[in-house]
Amino acid sequence: MKKTLIVGTVAFDEIETPQENSGKILGGAATYIGLSSALFNSKASIISIVGGDFDQKYLDLLKSKGLNTDSIEIISKGKTFYWKGKYHKDWNKRDTLSTQLNVLADFNPVLTKQDSSSEIIVLGNLHPAVQNIVLNQTNSDNKCVILDTMNFWMDNSLEELLNVIKKVNIIIINDEEALQLSGKDTLFNAAEEILKMGPKHVVIKKGEHGAMLFNKSEFFTIPAYPVKKVIDPTGAGDTFAGGFSGFLSQKNDLDFETLKLAVVHGTVMASFCVEGFGTFQMEKLNKETVEKRFKEFKKYTRY
Amino acid sequence: MKKTLIVGTVAFDEIETPQENSGKILGGAATYIGLSSALFNSKASIISIVGGDFDQKYLDLLKSKGLNTDSIEIISKGKTFYWKGKYHKDWNKRDTLSTQLNVLADFNPVLTKQDSSSEIIVLGNLHPAVQNIVLNQTNSDNKCVILDTMNFWMDNSLEELLNVIKKVNIIIINDEEALQLSGKDTLFNAAEEILKMGPKHVVIKKGEHGAMLFNKSEFFTIPAYPVKKVIDPTGAGDTFAGGFSGFLSQKNDLDFETLKLAVVHGTVMASFCVEGFGTFQMEKLNKETVEKRFKEFKKYTRY
Repeated sequence: MKKTLIVGTVAFDEIETPQENSGKILGGAATYIGLSSALFNSKASIISIVGGDFDQKYLDLLKSKGLNTDSIEIISKGKTFYWKGKYHKDWNKRDTLSTQLNVLADFNPVLTKQDSSSEIIVLGNLHPAVQNIVLNQTNSDNKCVILDTMNFWMDNSLEELLNVIKKVNIIIINDEEALQLSGKDTLFNAAEEILKMGPKHVVIKKGEHGAMLFNKSEFFTIPAYPVKKVIDPTGAGDTFAGGFSGFLSQKNDLDFETLKLAVVHGTVMASFCVEGFGTFQMEKLNKETVEKRFKEFKKYTRY
Repeated sequence: MKKTLIVGTVAFDEIETPQENSGKILGGAATYIGLSSALFNSKASIISIVGGDFDQKYLDLLKSKGLNTDSIEIISKGKTFYWKGKYHKDWNKRDTLSTQLNVLADFNPVLTKQDSSSEIIVLGNLHPAVQNIVLNQTNSDNKCVILDTMNFWMDNSLEELLNVIKKVNIIIINDEEALQLSGKDTLFNAAEEILKMGPKHVVIKKGEHGAMLFNKSEFFTIPAYPVKKVIDPTGAGDTFAGGFSGFLSQKNDLDFETLKLAVVHGTVMASFCVEGFGTFQMEKLNKETVEKRFKEFKKYTRY
């Protein structure tokens, strides 16, 4: 079992869908990545920052799943990062109604000796400057760095983002973002271009249409698990990254066959995430349920 | 090898893409289905109608691929069905610029004894009344009827279409059409509803996102073969149906495992079709190329 470090937001989300309004609930990239990776027994530590308004019960929840929350800094006089978003009938469209950085604005993570020796580093969606600060403090010889990011950073902090990208082993990105980052018009050309930026592997997420894995000479493609009813897509990408990294943390060899299985497990985890509001479904999961769905998915895709 | 009967248009197409204008070329649903199924050694007969303006070289081409063209009626004083369409940068959008039914307007197929005993019947996209006329003349006890149709008939001849649907074994339809036909809002619900209309199996094509196969208790999903450069999507759906039926014609047992493989072969054939203008790529194919791509696709999708 490889020691994992997850950096990202631990936050409050407020989500509106055509059916429901969540109110203020637990959210954040590191939360979803952590909850997802925890299903793989990953020895993961979360590095993040919250305000004095953050609920202890949420930290207790993360701990109860086996996640190490000691590196989640609590700024008692500050407020927790808050995001409010609204979905439409077409789940692919989402409006951000409010983003309040709060304590995240001054987040300057300092890694413990324990965290800095992690072998799997998951740079969750966050300002690339912060991702870089974390990355520069890690020191394992065999580390595997997995980067998740989004179009917001391509629009606003491209240079810092490219600076991170060149140092990571694996980048996880969605289809539109891959086209934007590469300036290409097909996913194949995009992946080829992004591989030149540094990563050895590129994972392109296509939401309800599945995911693809590329390196310089190999390719893998998989449809999504067929979710019967989507309740809330929030966190699905982070959950994918958590399943991906959680699966890898169990493996010694990170060859292409292993990475394929990591993509499949990321896909399976994301399918659970969208079946509930916020982290609701992720909190209820156990290993048996995950294993059952993996087997079912294998049956659905094998020929 | 099961004897196959294909009914559908043999026609002239004129295709505009952002890159090219094809001029008047060989087209038609039965043409694509035939060319595709021929790669599987299927003993297929095409039943269709053309005008005196139709080029003998096209009939010769079909014959050279092993297709029986004796049941393609030639109305020497009539004109061949003509379709002109235009694609945009987004391949999913297409405008029909012209449709001239010509000889197709009076098509009233009469099956030879030989054709009527076919075991695989492919009802290619055509007026459902004509599909019904053909179907009612077939008499094999073990026949497998495969229906391909499109939204145009749902809009204009729904009752006649439903009358065909209730008699077929397998319906092949695209995602939007499945939602329209069923009145449902997810593909799972759509498939469930369509199964109630008669077919034992439903294949839903999702274009660049792959295909799904449903029956009452089983499910299969597959991504598309990753085509590097799409030249012209015309005929891809027909080519899928041809690969699907061609593969089945080789098999005695039409169980779910066999149907899954038929979907995979339909997917592989469609990937060739879109790589060339009109039937261009389909004319050049040989069995080795198909087999090679099938193996490659298997490698891309296996885990």
